Amino acid sequence: MKKVQNSKLNGMLWIELEGERIIGPGRVELLKHIQECGSIRQAAMQMGMSYRKAWDLIEHMNSKLDKPVVVSIRGGKGGGKASVTDKGLAIIDQFNTFYDLFRNFLNDNTKLIRL
Amino acid sequence: MKKVQNSKLNGMLWIELEGERIIGPGRVELLKHIQECGSIRQAAMQMGMSYRKAWDLIEHMNSKLDKPVVVSIRGGKGGGKASVTDKGLAIIDQFNTFYDLFRNFLNDNTKLIRL
Repeated sequence: MKKVQNSKLNGMLWIELEGERIIGPGRVELLKHIQECGSIRQAAMQMGMSYRKAWDLIEHMNSKLDKPVVVSIRGGKGGGKASVTDKGLAIIDQFNTFYDLFRNFLNDNTKLIRL
Repeated sequence: MKKVQNSKLNGMLWIELEGERIIGPGRVELLKHIQECGSIRQAAMQMGMSYRKAWDLIEHMNSKLDKPVVVSIRGGKGGGKASVTDKGLAIIDQFNTFYDLFRNFLNDNTKLIRL
């Protein structure tokens, strides 16, 4: 068994609530885009995701958590506005913290792979 | 933000070689079954996997690594026999070690989730 330079430990990370995935990299990215552009529709477009899919992901988080992660005002010129709540921002921070630790875990252990 | 009892950090882990997944929980489970029953066909059945799929997974590992993880002798009464090589056993051990560390990482950080 020898160190193989082009080997890598890799993985995925998410938070479950009552056995369902509630927060993961895709949802956090969606929240960040909504925060930046103030629109679920634009955020979905930026991610190459349908508006319906984005709306369902937001609605799933909003319905499962005790407070919403995104609030939106429908209609008006140029469509509705959406904003990420303090709860949503705290969840982004929390997941990023876990993900940074996970990235360190993967990098540290990648050095130990012997194939 | 409060501690939610039924929340959990969860994830997946695998080893990549040249950008391709080469070792993960499913392949390690397949190797363990082959080790126990001495047959790729039986191991595949035990996992509810087609023989072709199991064979492809083994063949992928054997072709990408410098030594095979499984050797097999075709034919004979009751079909061919297969056995996991020392290299295959070492890879099972290595992945289990990484996975135990990963499980600890998930459990430790699950305690820190605040939703």
